[in-house]
Amino acid sequence: MTKSHHNTAPLELLPLGGLGAIGMNCMLLGHAGRWVMLDCGATFPSFAEAPGADTQIPSLDAIAELGDKIEAIVITHGHEDHIGALPWVLGDLDVPVWAPRFAAALIEEKLGEFEFDTEPIIHTVMPGDREQIGPFGFHWIQVSHSIPDACSLAIDTPHGKVLFTGDFKIEPGELPDGTAHDEAAFRALGDEGVFLMMSDSTNAEVPGWSRSEAVVAEKLVEVVGRCEGRVLVGLFSSNLYRVHAVLEAAARAGRKVALAGRSLNRYVRLASSASDLPIDRDRIVPLDRIDDVPDHELLIVATGSQGESRAALPRMARGQHRQLRVKEGDSLILSARKIPGNEALIIEMLQDFARRGATVVQQIAEPEIHASGHAYSDELRAMIQWVRPERFVPVHGVYTFMRRHAEIAREEGVRHTLIIENGQRVQAGPDGLRVAGEVSHEPWYTEGGLVAASADALGVRERLDLAHNGMIAISAWARRARRGLVGYVRVQVRGIYNEEGELTALLERRLQEALEETAADTPRSGIESRLRNAARRFFRRHLGRKPLTVVFAHVAGEDD
Amino acid sequence: MTKSHHNTAPLELLPLGGLGAIGMNCMLLGHAGRWVMLDCGATFPSFAEAPGADTQIPSLDAIAELGDKIEAIVITHGHEDHIGALPWVLGDLDVPVWAPRFAAALIEEKLGEFEFDTEPIIHTVMPGDREQIGPFGFHWIQVSHSIPDACSLAIDTPHGKVLFTGDFKIEPGELPDGTAHDEAAFRALGDEGVFLMMSDSTNAEVPGWSRSEAVVAEKLVEVVGRCEGRVLVGLFSSNLYRVHAVLEAAARAGRKVALAGRSLNRYVRLASSASDLPIDRDRIVPLDRIDDVPDHELLIVATGSQGESRAALPRMARGQHRQLRVKEGDSLILSARKIPGNEALIIEMLQDFARRGATVVQQIAEPEIHASGHAYSDELRAMIQWVRPERFVPVHGVYTFMRRHAEIAREEGVRHTLIIENGQRVQAGPDGLRVAGEVSHEPWYTEGGLVAASADALGVRERLDLAHNGMIAISAWARRARRGLVGYVRVQVRGIYNEEGELTALLERRLQEALEETAADTPRSGIESRLRNAARRFFRRHLGRKPLTVVFAHVAGEDD
Repeated sequence: MTKSHHNTAPLELLPLGGLGAIGMNCMLLGHAGRWVMLDCGATFPSFAEAPGADTQIPSLDAIAELGDKIEAIVITHGHEDHIGALPWVLGDLDVPVWAPRFAAALIEEKLGEFEFDTEPIIHTVMPGDREQIGPFGFHWIQVSHSIPDACSLAIDTPHGKVLFTGDFKIEPGELPDGTAHDEAAFRALGDEGVFLMMSDSTNAEVPGWSRSEAVVAEKLVEVVGRCEGRVLVGLFSSNLYRVHAVLEAAARAGRKVALAGRSLNRYVRLASSASDLPIDRDRIVPLDRIDDVPDHELLIVATGSQGESRAALPRMARGQHRQLRVKEGDSLILSARKIPGNEALIIEMLQDFARRGATVVQQIAEPEIHASGHAYSDELRAMIQWVRPERFVPVHGVYTFMRRHAEIAREEGVRHTLIIENGQRVQAGPDGLRVAGEVSHEPWYTEGGLVAASADALGVRERLDLAHNGMIAISAWARRARRGLVGYVRVQVRGIYNEEGELTALLERRLQEALEETAADTPRSGIESRLRNAARRFFRRHLGRKPLTVVFAHVAGEDD
Repeated sequence: MTKSHHNTAPLELLPLGGLGAIGMNCMLLGHAGRWVMLDCGATFPSFAEAPGADTQIPSLDAIAELGDKIEAIVITHGHEDHIGALPWVLGDLDVPVWAPRFAAALIEEKLGEFEFDTEPIIHTVMPGDREQIGPFGFHWIQVSHSIPDACSLAIDTPHGKVLFTGDFKIEPGELPDGTAHDEAAFRALGDEGVFLMMSDSTNAEVPGWSRSEAVVAEKLVEVVGRCEGRVLVGLFSSNLYRVHAVLEAAARAGRKVALAGRSLNRYVRLASSASDLPIDRDRIVPLDRIDDVPDHELLIVATGSQGESRAALPRMARGQHRQLRVKEGDSLILSARKIPGNEALIIEMLQDFARRGATVVQQIAEPEIHASGHAYSDELRAMIQWVRPERFVPVHGVYTFMRRHAEIAREEGVRHTLIIENGQRVQAGPDGLRVAGEVSHEPWYTEGGLVAASADALGVRERLDLAHNGMIAISAWARRARRGLVGYVRVQVRGIYNEEGELTALLERRLQEALEETAADTPRSGIESRLRNAARRFFRRHLGRKPLTVVFAHVAGEDD
């Protein structure tokens, strides 16, 4: 494969999410000043990272920097970490979105909950389709993942083909919707020659080959088959092939199925209208009709596998679900991984189920009740062997995993590999790959479907500070007398040890002294900083900590 | 085995920690109003559970309830989750502590950092020793765990023998200090007859037999052997047999060893003076002399395997360790499990090591670099088969695991099993086991070695609220005029989206109106609640959230 690249601007990459982290995938691909965004994901920040925030999204500042130069957004598949930021990004960016059928259906629903000045345009494609979008030609290639219509993107650029794998694993057989990982297409790409491959690193450090979804489906049949009372299955509603496997296991056990959780109902509904996944809707009973079904003929699929407090399973665990109550004899099968950061919540939830008499089946004892949707190292290696790219950039994964992935590519003879991170602007040209610059890319956070802002603008750092150190509010009233200030100080503390008000009494006395020692002509701001400093010294001495401090001083006759 | 129990008060159990949770183990054993405490542990709460707190300890209120009736504290081994609450409990309770040699040495050091009215008395025993303590006869039996002098307690009571296993696994061979799990003693107990067994449930749901520490030791030799640059090993300093295995691996590879971390140095120093663990101190070089040692002849053992921000490894990861800088060619071996709740921090830390050029070896790729110190289900079964107790109570573990453990006991023919939780007062008599009552047992928290208090008294709930919702402070100055209040309002917010002060400006205007609409004769508290309510309405409307609100109103001429 030789091609002439002279007189051509280099191809450019600018990842704004998903590299050096899991989730919030967002990659910009550019050439000669024209850009296309590949995926536009969100992630759910942990309490320790951003308490009170709902989602983390790519920096809208960084996206605004490119502004008009971005011509479209192209989506690989419909998971939140690939489409979740669209409502926010499309609020700023008036560009069309191209997405495979099932993703497009999810996006339409999601955008329906927001208002836009101009209604966004969503183009629906099918795996196998080809489209010219902005400066590039796109070809969607079917991969096996955990949701219908998941695709890799093969992209024609002036430098040759780029392969952006999206999320994938390699299922040996057919997926439940009759599709399959399109090995032939990837081998064909390899034959044509691939300028650059970017591939999913989520599990790059895990040796071997991931468990097949078919194995999980069989195991679920077995585990459900041996349950006597009601069966509850906890999973991610977005893991739609798993939902299908559970429906199948229910059918094999002669059980009706109820769906608990709004997102689960949405996914199953859309699966019927916007995918080829065969869903036996006759088997589904509404949640408010489950009392008509004998326990041994009922299986309930539920959201909340990560202990998310408002989802179905955790509400059941706490005894707060309106329609569902855990009963002695219930079995809960947790067919999901525990995402790092959620373990404590999940463990609490499982304990509560057990306390209420349910048998809990988890991967510790039954490893085959779950499988990852992401390729392990030998699958990643196979993909590289099929594609044989000239250049390789690992994406979607923490740094250690991206490094291992790059190592695998080198072991397979790929000449140019580069590990990059969010915010690095990379040039791919005839000579290889190089980092050409860096842009500010601190993620933003959203709250309540209303606000999106940087961590600082949203007050995330202050919230963390408040959580660690508590707060103190000081309000002083004073008037200027000849020999000094006369007045009084009141104090309120929150999140600080203050048994029987001893601490605040001491502190008020100390601040009263500080006020009285202040020169009569001190401006209001000076009075406030004297009080603030006195409070700081007090806390350093008495508690060894630094509460967040808010001070007001009022001076008589000097209202503002 | 028949014994007459008539006319004897039942044996009583009162767990204050460690049941339905991991860590903070504390069990009270009583008979006829005389009590002994078995272990007195602390645990480290997660940020999401108690931000700003250092440790969680058993309720000192619940302990004070029994007060003088507690005659001694008996310790199984020296891990923090078995001895960590001693400084706080001994501040309230003037009783002797009995502990095996290595635990006693750790306790002495720990208590040295605190001041007591009466100096606590620590009695040192050796595995195999027998002592009469309070109403019971104690016999310490050597078990295999991850620290020297770990013991089960065989306890003579008026009802017969009680076995309290403490933490254990069953190592097939000798431990590095020449001791071994004392199978013969447990079999002998079984022959004598055991009235009640309480056993470690930490891993009860994990099938099979735990990996032997000998396998880990061999694997560490192999992994260290193939490293070329410096080797860093991250572990728990309290996992002292592992520290020993790492020292051995260093010796086999011809490497000197440096110890990074205060607790690590303490454990290694005490191992020399208070255990039979052979430590080759000649191999150890001070941290400030490592530059004299070539990279390939150096191994650094470091604390911070859980990403604890002030420990050695995380400081290295951030480039903030005074003596240690990560170098290209370094290898970091993480020989520890990831405790639920810590994963996100650990992943960040490992990424930073990789970014600085270190190769990271973790269990994902090399499972044998770590082993649990707690028995898996088949080991628990073996222990029950040896001991053949009449009654069985699972302890130390989350509820799902305790339930599985009780199931194993029933499968092995134990007649009476009962799953209990912290705060439940249990009677064991001729008829079996029953819950006879419940005591309030909400754990306490400590901060800065100075304060111990309940979550509420410490302000933990307020801190969580602040983290979720942020705060707003309102200070109003007013004077009473004929037609109403005249004055002004100032507002400060923290942890709330307030771009360019728009929110506070709006809110101040709204509160100013509320102030002016207040009747002239409203008392100060009434003014404050009107302002508070107006602020609440404002936030519900504008942000859909409820910030913690602090209000001050000053009325001219009515200083307090």
